[in-house]
Amino acid sequence: MVVVMQERATEEQIAQVVARLVEMGMDVHRSTGVERTVLGAVGQGLPDAGLIEMLDGVHEVLRISSPYKLASRTFKPEGTVVMIGDIRLGGDEVIVMAGPCSAENEKQVGTTAAAVRRAGAKILRGGAFKPRSSPYSFQGLGEEGLRLLRDASRAENLKLITEVMDLSQIELIDRYADIFQVGARNMQNFTLLRELGHVRKPVLLKRGISATIEEWLLSAEYVLSGGNTDVILCERGIRTFETATRNTFDISAIPVVRKLSHLPIVADPSHGAGRRDMVVPMARAAVAAGADGLIIEVHCDPDHALSDGAQSLFPSQFDRLMAELRIIAPAIGRSICLEPVARRGWS
Amino acid sequence: MVVVMQERATEEQIAQVVARLVEMGMDVHRSTGVERTVLGAVGQGLPDAGLIEMLDGVHEVLRISSPYKLASRTFKPEGTVVMIGDIRLGGDEVIVMAGPCSAENEKQVGTTAAAVRRAGAKILRGGAFKPRSSPYSFQGLGEEGLRLLRDASRAENLKLITEVMDLSQIELIDRYADIFQVGARNMQNFTLLRELGHVRKPVLLKRGISATIEEWLLSAEYVLSGGNTDVILCERGIRTFETATRNTFDISAIPVVRKLSHLPIVADPSHGAGRRDMVVPMARAAVAAGADGLIIEVHCDPDHALSDGAQSLFPSQFDRLMAELRIIAPAIGRSICLEPVARRGWS
Amino acid sequence: MVVVMQERATEEQIAQVVARLVEMGMDVHRSTGVERTVLGAVGQGLPDAGLIEMLDGVHEVLRISSPYKLASRTFKPEGTVVMIGDIRLGGDEVIVMAGPCSAENEKQVGTTAAAVRRAGAKILRGGAFKPRSSPYSFQGLGEEGLRLLRDASRAENLKLITEVMDLSQIELIDRYADIFQVGARNMQNFTLLRELGHVRKPVLLKRGISATIEEWLLSAEYVLSGGNTDVILCERGIRTFETATRNTFDISAIPVVRKLSHLPIVADPSHGAGRRDMVVPMARAAVAAGADGLIIEVHCDPDHALSDGAQSLFPSQFDRLMAELRIIAPAIGRSICLEPVARRGWS
Amino acid sequence: MVVVMQERATEEQIAQVVARLVEMGMDVHRSTGVERTVLGAVGQGLPDAGLIEMLDGVHEVLRISSPYKLASRTFKPEGTVVMIGDIRLGGDEVIVMAGPCSAENEKQVGTTAAAVRRAGAKILRGGAFKPRSSPYSFQGLGEEGLRLLRDASRAENLKLITEVMDLSQIELIDRYADIFQVGARNMQNFTLLRELGHVRKPVLLKRGISATIEEWLLSAEYVLSGGNTDVILCERGIRTFETATRNTFDISAIPVVRKLSHLPIVADPSHGAGRRDMVVPMARAAVAAGADGLIIEVHCDPDHALSDGAQSLFPSQFDRLMAELRIIAPAIGRSICLEPVARRGWS
Repeated sequence: MVVVMQERATEEQIAQVVARLVEMGMDVHRSTGVERTVLGAVGQGLPDAGLIEMLDGVHEVLRISSPYKLASRTFKPEGTVVMIGDIRLGGDEVIVMAGPCSAENEKQVGTTAAAVRRAGAKILRGGAFKPRSSPYSFQGLGEEGLRLLRDASRAENLKLITEVMDLSQIELIDRYADIFQVGARNMQNFTLLRELGHVRKPVLLKRGISATIEEWLLSAEYVLSGGNTDVILCERGIRTFETATRNTFDISAIPVVRKLSHLPIVADPSHGAGRRDMVVPMARAAVAAGADGLIIEVHCDPDHALSDGAQSLFPSQFDRLMAELRIIAPAIGRSICLEPVARRGWS
Repeated sequence: MVVVMQERATEEQIAQVVARLVEMGMDVHRSTGVERTVLGAVGQGLPDAGLIEMLDGVHEVLRISSPYKLASRTFKPEGTVVMIGDIRLGGDEVIVMAGPCSAENEKQVGTTAAAVRRAGAKILRGGAFKPRSSPYSFQGLGEEGLRLLRDASRAENLKLITEVMDLSQIELIDRYADIFQVGARNMQNFTLLRELGHVRKPVLLKRGISATIEEWLLSAEYVLSGGNTDVILCERGIRTFETATRNTFDISAIPVVRKLSHLPIVADPSHGAGRRDMVVPMARAAVAAGADGLIIEVHCDPDHALSDGAQSLFPSQFDRLMAELRIIAPAIGRSICLEPVARRGWS
Repeated sequence: MVVVMQERATEEQIAQVVARLVEMGMDVHRSTGVERTVLGAVGQGLPDAGLIEMLDGVHEVLRISSPYKLASRTFKPEGTVVMIGDIRLGGDEVIVMAGPCSAENEKQVGTTAAAVRRAGAKILRGGAFKPRSSPYSFQGLGEEGLRLLRDASRAENLKLITEVMDLSQIELIDRYADIFQVGARNMQNFTLLRELGHVRKPVLLKRGISATIEEWLLSAEYVLSGGNTDVILCERGIRTFETATRNTFDISAIPVVRKLSHLPIVADPSHGAGRRDMVVPMARAAVAAGADGLIIEVHCDPDHALSDGAQSLFPSQFDRLMAELRIIAPAIGRSICLEPVARRGWS
Repeated sequence: MVVVMQERATEEQIAQVVARLVEMGMDVHRSTGVERTVLGAVGQGLPDAGLIEMLDGVHEVLRISSPYKLASRTFKPEGTVVMIGDIRLGGDEVIVMAGPCSAENEKQVGTTAAAVRRAGAKILRGGAFKPRSSPYSFQGLGEEGLRLLRDASRAENLKLITEVMDLSQIELIDRYADIFQVGARNMQNFTLLRELGHVRKPVLLKRGISATIEEWLLSAEYVLSGGNTDVILCERGIRTFETATRNTFDISAIPVVRKLSHLPIVADPSHGAGRRDMVVPMARAAVAAGADGLIIEVHCDPDHALSDGAQSLFPSQFDRLMAELRIIAPAIGRSICLEPVARRGWS
């Protein structure tokens, strides 16, 4: 940490700051300039910069080490590939997850799963427990929804990702899904994150709508420090002043995360855009910007969806999008599913 | 809901929108203008405006009913007074809650509790389970912290408020505290909120750092709709582009909430400001703007606090602040504790 | 405009609102629902919705007509192609403008212009008057800079775009440049915009860093309503809470603008990203999202640039970017300069 | 400036950074830690931190000197009192400026001026040139408006503040007003600011709706560095995600500015709130937070105002507000006009 003293700081003030830093277990290097004195402090642990900033004569405290370790690119320069069965997320292929916002009934889940598989998705997405702003909105089918999603994903030979909202649901969801999804509202539910550090399945961690990239990586650190190294980051839009879109899809988070962290990053253009007609250009942009994957809401009948219908693609739109992505991916040295996985023989 | 058609919408498109609204159970009134057609739709339930907006020929959909009911001022025009023992929060007196960020040890808690009582606080605040951005930061003393806080509050004849981070902690905290505090990061932890609808103690609900006021009131609605009518709202700063302060204290939320809702609102200038020297002016401003109460971090030795030291007031600063508030409160027809509660005889 | 009355509004209050609307020249349609009364008001002009909202008994006022007319897609559904000489901006080809932030000297401008032409740019960008946050930063070469830019653009057979900061510079810049650029800080310099409505050259209007898309289109309306129909919009990043990038490049503005307006939209990934290593992915994303063009800072020696060096591409990076864009553009049915324009014979 | 190298930076990379810093005219101090090397660079001028950040092996560059000098508290620790005639702005008295948004006609200006004088305002505010988002809104009366404002202010013995929108209006406005107001949209109109550095009257500089406090002080620096030391800062709300109010009034900017700068700061609760019923609590909060003055829109008939009617106070509301402020001001050791100035004898 670097402590910048005020221009008029006295020798006594400087001495007090140095003493406090030493008390915190830091080695201090002093640099006396014409205008002001600067103190460099090095040591173990995470001293509270705010406390130093409050001392008399201090102008500003600058942090020089990043607060996350296991999530940083420095920790693993070559990048992480997360394996979901034999699917490699974070490698050359852009992996697409698709499916309905919520599981509603057997036909809806089955039809949608078949459609996204045929178009080239490898992972089925869908919710059984839905976090809704209003207590009066549809809250998901619960375990029945999990069963529908698992059956459809198995029939179509897809992997399954679904959201876990709370500590108490981990065990249940573990019996059905291949990837735990942590929603934006739970990005700082630390009790949940800490517990997910102990499961043996990948965790997809969505960025909170007002989380800085640093906070997001710190939340990943909670999972990683528990021993689970398979964390997938997911950008899904941030909250800004602009109201023309539900959120502002932060496309630049993709290259920033790839620089700061070794973890793979996927994009969720559905929530990022909030409207079906914006999802397609945002999905293309995400792949062009270097995303390792996409997670997209597709519904066999979006106009009658029980949730998120406005941002769910029709299967035919999803087909067309996949065709466009197959043109774009090579521009950045990547491929995208050329041949869909086969449906399972027995189903 | 009002559906504004595009200027060039065809009769067929209009007919389709009307049909879809009727299918959703709405009564539709059509108003044909020179420029465009506008449809008014009235009915029960919460139809998905997004779905209508996606239909061909629709320009925009405007919602006319507020999505929260029990939290709205219309539901209870006279305003709610929350009773915490014999303390009336939401009445003429501005109620002050104060204490350390975290319970650290018996002496720290006891000394601080005594100091805030003497200055006029009526409720002791303090955390035992701390949500921290980094997994490597101090996470609180757990139940031992609760015990320390309860003992000190009883000794000083103060009520106690402490944070509940998770569903699984409700029962434990219920044994120690008088008010459940829900932190900003949990404002949309709906599983937790729903459960707090069933407890018989007041719930202080902090605003999420990027929550709109509407979302905040919807979260209150989760608690209210469970049957717990004692919800206290708490403004604690929102996230904006400005980096000179940790958060931007949204002072205007106070009159806005008082207009939209009957629930009492308190202000947390400590988190709103993030720096000790900003806490005092923000606390004064909050009372001047009409807050029903304050929740303030005070520490007997802030320079050595294990968390939030930089924003914790020294007891002497808190004394001075209370004196200033006693001058300001009458400007808006309110009082503030003139005589501190007595320490309990037996302790 | 739709006036939503409060649930408990009295007949007298409703009558007063109706009277006020009529006084403002509106026709009023009343719709009495079970819960509340809604008034639809139609008329000429732009009545002040705020005034109605202040009347007793009014819950909310919703605007139903867009405040801009000439800039809206409705006004010209087929889209505008802006001609700059024989360059068609807004057609099938993605047009690239490139060059240094500021003109510094003859060699720098000439070398850079030659490099961007060879890579496929059609328009040279460069500044002579620089708006800088600090009065102590390099402020540009003034008219000497304009001369250098014009000479280089002519030599390389490129068109020239440069920034106009003030009313008083219009005449001067008109003598040198082919497109007037209005910077983000001047997006609401209405005196300047009004005057640019009278020039006979295209105006590229950058979005202010905190301008909503609606405000941006209203600013375009200032130029259009003066008689100049050649307005090009330019997204260059908005200000949000995220500090990992200088601005947040609002990629979704591209499809939103294409839907709301007929004006062509280009993207400025240099200012949107603020760092050279982010410019390339952002540029790819912008084309994938449907931008009609790009404006990119390129410098023959970015490490020694007098301004914006950190976000200026090396010529070799620009070459590679153009190659990548040639792969992406066809995914959305567009092309990008396959053969650079020839250098002028005489130079 | 402090350059933090990456953990794996090579000696060669470090040497290149040092060489580049020296080339920029800096003295460099190297500090080699266990984890990483940190370079401290000291020198004259404002080296471009972005350029250093782009060099290989650099993790981050931290600035240690503030970019503004003349505006900083260090430059003048005792604070500036701006004299407007015999009115001391920045001293013990809280100074109130009030009046209509725009001058509309003689009666409106005269009646309003008389009302605000009687309530205790010392300065009349009012606009003759109005910056409006839409080209179709009322744009002000121009010079006729200036004449009306001057006549009314003289009659009531008030000083006059009015907005200057453009370089070309300076001379005209100088003939009528006592203070030049620079609006939020022009906070970075550097051509205008530079010219205002040469006038001999105070300049009130509103904060841009998305300007950081640092950028705001840099804009003040433009005026100060031109030789005009009478700059008054004015907070008027920033743009955030919240839509319940037109802007978010950044109350914390008041203590922050008082700490960073010696310039006086006034608050504009009218634009900060955007609604009449929010103006009063925001005005009280601003004084409680330490503002040196207020600028408030008051209109003799707000319901028929040609602009900003919804946020203009009725004279009776303004009276009541002034009474409340007289109670609050002493809490922070200040007074507020106890006796209005006399109307001029001759008028």
